[in-house]
Amino acid sequence: MIAEKMKPFVQNNSAIRMMFEEGNRLRSIYGADKVFDFSLGNPSVPAPDCIREAIIELVNEVEPTVLHGYMSNAGFEDVRQTIAESLNRRFGTAFSAKNLIMTVGAASGLNIILKAITNPGEEIITFAPYFLEYGSYVRNYDGKLVTISPDTTTFQPNLKEFEEKITANTRAVIVNTPHNPTGVVYSEETIKKLASILEEKQKEFGTVIYLISDEPYRELAYDGVEVPYLTKYYANTIVGYSYSKSLSLPGERIGYVVIPDEADGSEELISAATIANRINGSVNAPSLMQKVIAKCVDAEVDVSAYDKNRTALYNGLKECGFECIKPQGAFYLFVKSPVENEKEFCEAGKKYNILMVPGSSFACPGYVRLAYCVSYDTIINSLPAFKKLAEEFGL
Amino acid sequence: MIAEKMKPFVQNNSAIRMMFEEGNRLRSIYGADKVFDFSLGNPSVPAPDCIREAIIELVNEVEPTVLHGYMSNAGFEDVRQTIAESLNRRFGTAFSAKNLIMTVGAASGLNIILKAITNPGEEIITFAPYFLEYGSYVRNYDGKLVTISPDTTTFQPNLKEFEEKITANTRAVIVNTPHNPTGVVYSEETIKKLASILEEKQKEFGTVIYLISDEPYRELAYDGVEVPYLTKYYANTIVGYSYSKSLSLPGERIGYVVIPDEADGSEELISAATIANRINGSVNAPSLMQKVIAKCVDAEVDVSAYDKNRTALYNGLKECGFECIKPQGAFYLFVKSPVENEKEFCEAGKKYNILMVPGSSFACPGYVRLAYCVSYDTIINSLPAFKKLAEEFGL
Repeated sequence: MIAEKMKPFVQNNSAIRMMFEEGNRLRSIYGADKVFDFSLGNPSVPAPDCIREAIIELVNEVEPTVLHGYMSNAGFEDVRQTIAESLNRRFGTAFSAKNLIMTVGAASGLNIILKAITNPGEEIITFAPYFLEYGSYVRNYDGKLVTISPDTTTFQPNLKEFEEKITANTRAVIVNTPHNPTGVVYSEETIKKLASILEEKQKEFGTVIYLISDEPYRELAYDGVEVPYLTKYYANTIVGYSYSKSLSLPGERIGYVVIPDEADGSEELISAATIANRINGSVNAPSLMQKVIAKCVDAEVDVSAYDKNRTALYNGLKECGFECIKPQGAFYLFVKSPVENEKEFCEAGKKYNILMVPGSSFACPGYVRLAYCVSYDTIINSLPAFKKLAEEFGL
Repeated sequence: MIAEKMKPFVQNNSAIRMMFEEGNRLRSIYGADKVFDFSLGNPSVPAPDCIREAIIELVNEVEPTVLHGYMSNAGFEDVRQTIAESLNRRFGTAFSAKNLIMTVGAASGLNIILKAITNPGEEIITFAPYFLEYGSYVRNYDGKLVTISPDTTTFQPNLKEFEEKITANTRAVIVNTPHNPTGVVYSEETIKKLASILEEKQKEFGTVIYLISDEPYRELAYDGVEVPYLTKYYANTIVGYSYSKSLSLPGERIGYVVIPDEADGSEELISAATIANRINGSVNAPSLMQKVIAKCVDAEVDVSAYDKNRTALYNGLKECGFECIKPQGAFYLFVKSPVENEKEFCEAGKKYNILMVPGSSFACPGYVRLAYCVSYDTIINSLPAFKKLAEEFGL
């Protein structure tokens, strides 16, 4: 009864649902505070107060037919201009309202970019490990996802293999920094190298290759690390941003796409992406939330809470003997499984009420992802359980 | 620089933008109150007070990580259950939370249904005149839109031609009642006939044909007319609903899909549509608005304001000599152009600051659509202008 293309998704989905149900089952038996669920990337730090205040102000002050009404498919112009100016202040860019399209989160943003640019069979490159949904998004437009194998020493992108795999058929490259699932932030050096490879390959093939920067974790960076703004290093960069993590609004589905004037075919591309926003069914980003963002454009969540979790979990795991790089961004640790088949390790974790996501779910088996966007107590209380788990595996 | 598939959209889009800009141009010259813009289906009646009150209550009472957080891709279970129970009370149906998927408006709802069921080349039937976006949505999944020519006497669906055009390759039929652009409400008799044709054709071809009911205008019905609930007449009905018009929230992008237990492959279909919600980039319907809907589940906009507009504009146009059926729903009049090429008539209207949408934009040339979701003053003030326009065309 369903489309052929959907069948593998439906089969695979039951695995995800089983994991979710396992969490609920454990919580119902042992109590929520005894289950160490590191499986979900759902922000634990609440949205800043500014959000609540802005919502109340807006519903009290703005005429409802405007506040909840249709606007251009790209979003309210004043909202886009406000965000553009904030980006310009922070990153020295030169965007204006016309370069931004408000979207239903970054997931929708990536979809409208891919819909705007991808012809069937064209290749979109990304670096493993990666958010598996990229594959679904690319398949939505009959593109072909080409993946670069991971550099498991640094989890910086493997640029040698990248260079080899770019072809005349390469339409775009998706990068994600700070990175899910490793927490790595791409250094300026890496980005410069990546940009120069793309420049060369564009010349070699006489093609345009877009660099799509998926940045829901931009504001979650620690140790004072810089997260370079990619449009400044490569003209054909398109940004997909989300407020899901930066303002803890994942359920509200609010983000934007930036298409700079410098990008090849910028005007046509902005038009195509705006139309894609309409015909993929989003029509526009939620109107009230657009106006909330404009009022809270410089607000921040309390990143220090994530930083505290990061340090406690990282140190705790290292003390247990686990191998892991210390991430500088996002809210994930990517831990080496003590056995080759990390699913076995995940299964063993459940005995200690520890829920982890296998690295296979990010095209990087042999590792597990821990989302530390949980309470600090959960981190601390989980450490004895991790200790037992480590001992079981002879660490 | 853009995908081949997007090129016709970009070309066509400039025509729509030109119409929008023409409105702005006229308003800047003559003042907003002197321009009679009947081109946009943007609700003029404000959202009921309940919406504002619910928003304020929710942001003051619900923990932000829950209120703005991720939930199941189908939406909050309590919200879906509340809506299901409201439908059951009103229509004698037997839905529960599992039959509903909260969506980013009806446009996204139609997209996830079509993505869930459509294989490339399969046919989706609809009745002209129709909302041209149906064509875009069907093409998103490489389906083929098959259209039934209009019955311009009643604008009820032409069931004879419908019966003839159903093939073994027909996957679904989209209906829209109350109807954009005609305002017609399909009678119970029509729906029974349509259902019986579908039943027979399913038997004849040994196929499953879904009836997709696109119902953003369900609550906008006048003269006490009944709008039959389609799942009660045909088991393979899927509903796409939106609060855009019923609660005047078009910018918020909130609606739902109903897949009844009676539909063939219901469980698999619910799963596929929920996954489609995720991978098309919506992920989930906006979280705050989901909870607002649950609190306002029985709220209504002031439909009497639209009814007053309807009567005044209909009577005024008839007095001028225009031909038009009196609609019983939605907020549109579909008026016969006094000349064959209705675009000529639309152009002439601009001289009197009247903005109308040509019927060609709904695959029904020779007619124009007037959206009467404007202020009552606009209606009254436009009548002398329509009088002059009628005289110009010798009516």
